[in-house]
Amino acid sequence: MEKMLLNEIAAGTLARIREKSPLVLSLTNSVVQAITANLLLAVGAAPAMLSEISECNDMLETCGNALLVNLGTLTRAQAETMRGAAKTANERNIPWVLDPVAVGALRFRTEFAQEMLAMRPTIVRGNAGEILALAGETAQTRGTDSICASDAALGAAQKIARKIGGIVLVTGEIDYVTDGARTIACGNGNAMMTRVTGVGCAMGALTAACAAVADSPFEAAVSCAALMGTAGDIALEKSAAPGSFAAALLDALYEISPETLRSRAKLSAV
Amino acid sequence: MEKMLLNEIAAGTLARIREKSPLVLSLTNSVVQAITANLLLAVGAAPAMLSEISECNDMLETCGNALLVNLGTLTRAQAETMRGAAKTANERNIPWVLDPVAVGALRFRTEFAQEMLAMRPTIVRGNAGEILALAGETAQTRGTDSICASDAALGAAQKIARKIGGIVLVTGEIDYVTDGARTIACGNGNAMMTRVTGVGCAMGALTAACAAVADSPFEAAVSCAALMGTAGDIALEKSAAPGSFAAALLDALYEISPETLRSRAKLSAV
Amino acid sequence: MEKMLLNEIAAGTLARIREKSPLVLSLTNSVVQAITANLLLAVGAAPAMLSEISECNDMLETCGNALLVNLGTLTRAQAETMRGAAKTANERNIPWVLDPVAVGALRFRTEFAQEMLAMRPTIVRGNAGEILALAGETAQTRGTDSICASDAALGAAQKIARKIGGIVLVTGEIDYVTDGARTIACGNGNAMMTRVTGVGCAMGALTAACAAVADSPFEAAVSCAALMGTAGDIALEKSAAPGSFAAALLDALYEISPETLRSRAKLSAV
Repeated sequence: MEKMLLNEIAAGTLARIREKSPLVLSLTNSVVQAITANLLLAVGAAPAMLSEISECNDMLETCGNALLVNLGTLTRAQAETMRGAAKTANERNIPWVLDPVAVGALRFRTEFAQEMLAMRPTIVRGNAGEILALAGETAQTRGTDSICASDAALGAAQKIARKIGGIVLVTGEIDYVTDGARTIACGNGNAMMTRVTGVGCAMGALTAACAAVADSPFEAAVSCAALMGTAGDIALEKSAAPGSFAAALLDALYEISPETLRSRAKLSAV
Repeated sequence: MEKMLLNEIAAGTLARIREKSPLVLSLTNSVVQAITANLLLAVGAAPAMLSEISECNDMLETCGNALLVNLGTLTRAQAETMRGAAKTANERNIPWVLDPVAVGALRFRTEFAQEMLAMRPTIVRGNAGEILALAGETAQTRGTDSICASDAALGAAQKIARKIGGIVLVTGEIDYVTDGARTIACGNGNAMMTRVTGVGCAMGALTAACAAVADSPFEAAVSCAALMGTAGDIALEKSAAPGSFAAALLDALYEISPETLRSRAKLSAV
Repeated sequence: MEKMLLNEIAAGTLARIREKSPLVLSLTNSVVQAITANLLLAVGAAPAMLSEISECNDMLETCGNALLVNLGTLTRAQAETMRGAAKTANERNIPWVLDPVAVGALRFRTEFAQEMLAMRPTIVRGNAGEILALAGETAQTRGTDSICASDAALGAAQKIARKIGGIVLVTGEIDYVTDGARTIACGNGNAMMTRVTGVGCAMGALTAACAAVADSPFEAAVSCAALMGTAGDIALEKSAAPGSFAAALLDALYEISPETLRSRAKLSAV
């Protein structure tokens, strides 16, 4: 796919988020709940955050359009809720995103991430270290930070994508989206986004919002990378320190038009 | 009551919050704890957030001036804590506010909200969909969003107010406060307040702060609607996107004087 | 130690944080997780937040450089995790900080804080009321607020420092650092810092980050007081209301250089 077509896809996904306001049930870690909800609201989507499995099912069965499963501060109780919600999402063909935060050295969540992977999420979003660890390869990670560049995990991403019959989005200086055969790169975004807690995690929720409205999970992940990265680029023009950057990023996601995204997205086939 | 008198009441409540700094034990959902605490601190009140029921009782028995019970991410453990805290508040004549977030389609919290309602909260705060659901009427809700306008829930609000012998505050484009007989409308506020997660929930905590210092729960709810809405109006003059608006809203609540509130509040009898 | 030497120590600690980016496992209350993570990221350190004890141990045994134990919204499950993490930290000589939020009137956490104190934390950080209560003296507290000035707790701080063979940092209008024999005062900082929820709690995490890189826990606590207070002074020059101040504080921690800290820190021997 050429750059113009790719940018057109991203712009179209943004327009549909604004039109349909997809409701994303976000089962995510306690550190990033607020920024995740704020980011979804800023871009025009709707967040829902629940604790009890029965309520998750009530929501997925009535008005939920997508599901996020983020393992950031995983507890045994939350794992149980996530299991049930992923099952319901699969039964109802609701797209869901797995964000395997900090898998690798942390064994409890690494085992659980494999269990979730076997349930075949629509899209997996992670940094290079997480994607390598999820593929069973040795990765250098340190907490939520990946020590290697995103292209080092491209093979692992393609392997996971083929295994689940889904999409993998590897985020880093360059973001990559792959279905195991095709791969698209996104050059938007910047390091300041790693200085605000939860930007990566909220991107998982945005991926789910995109998956609720895009024509395919592949196009959803490509759109999300471009949208998030371009908003980050715009925010950095307004602010060069993390406190004000966090506000500028939400402002940019609120103000960005499909036209701006079409002209500024840096998408290309690999 | 005429507008001048109503505005005078709101201004007086704000002055008393600044003078007495009421301590609000806020049992609220995990998404909005930070903005709730920050909003209370900005306006001049004091937040307390606890998990264990024994500690909630210790606080209500020593220095707590009001209680908020918000059902946003309700768990079974939290329901148990809320039950005990509401009981203690009733025993000690401490005013408490019930915020029945997203009741309706979510059955666990809807049943629990009815149980809390039977304990006769001082004030109930909700959007139209939540108030309709709480009154047992059919409501169109979608997650935390109400699909109908606040005046559609006015009858339901009056019914609940009479049932509990308390006050209901319905928030929306127009906010309504009723005790089942009298009803006051507040025309302040704007849609940007729905683009920042937790503004509505934090308004529940502010209602509790007002109830700790006002002459009556009715005057507390009227004051809260005017104070929150006017601060939102001032913030919108500073910022038109949600990231910077959130900061501007806290700034406005910190800076607003009783005089400004007296001149800008849009309160009227219905 | 004279002022020039003290300021030099603080500047050196900041330079080392930037160079080594210590990973701080922050077991903290649910209200302040986001600001704690954002503050660590802004200054150049790395946050980790986990719930399961097995994962805490995995992290402390692989890449964790310091531990924070903050009792703000303590639950029985969290107490169990904290017990285990403190034990692992002690076994591995990893510095850890105890922040006994709101001990005194709240009995569950007060007992647990004594248990933690017996495990000999590297540094204890608290306000005057908390330090007095921890020393078994009568303190006037109200929620998280101390009613007395920090110098009223100086004797209690020295007593605790001698008891644990560690350091106590009492924060207030003047911050004090003591090992039971020597005491240093820090005159930086301002009251706006108490209008943003979690600034004090995040300072506990910053103390842990400093302890991971400084030559001694004493120098770590002195450095933290100067760094946090000076950043607060710079932020207040940018903003005089709490919403924008919170962003300005993170910006200041990101932008402050060791040179600026050396020239602006107000440290002196008592």
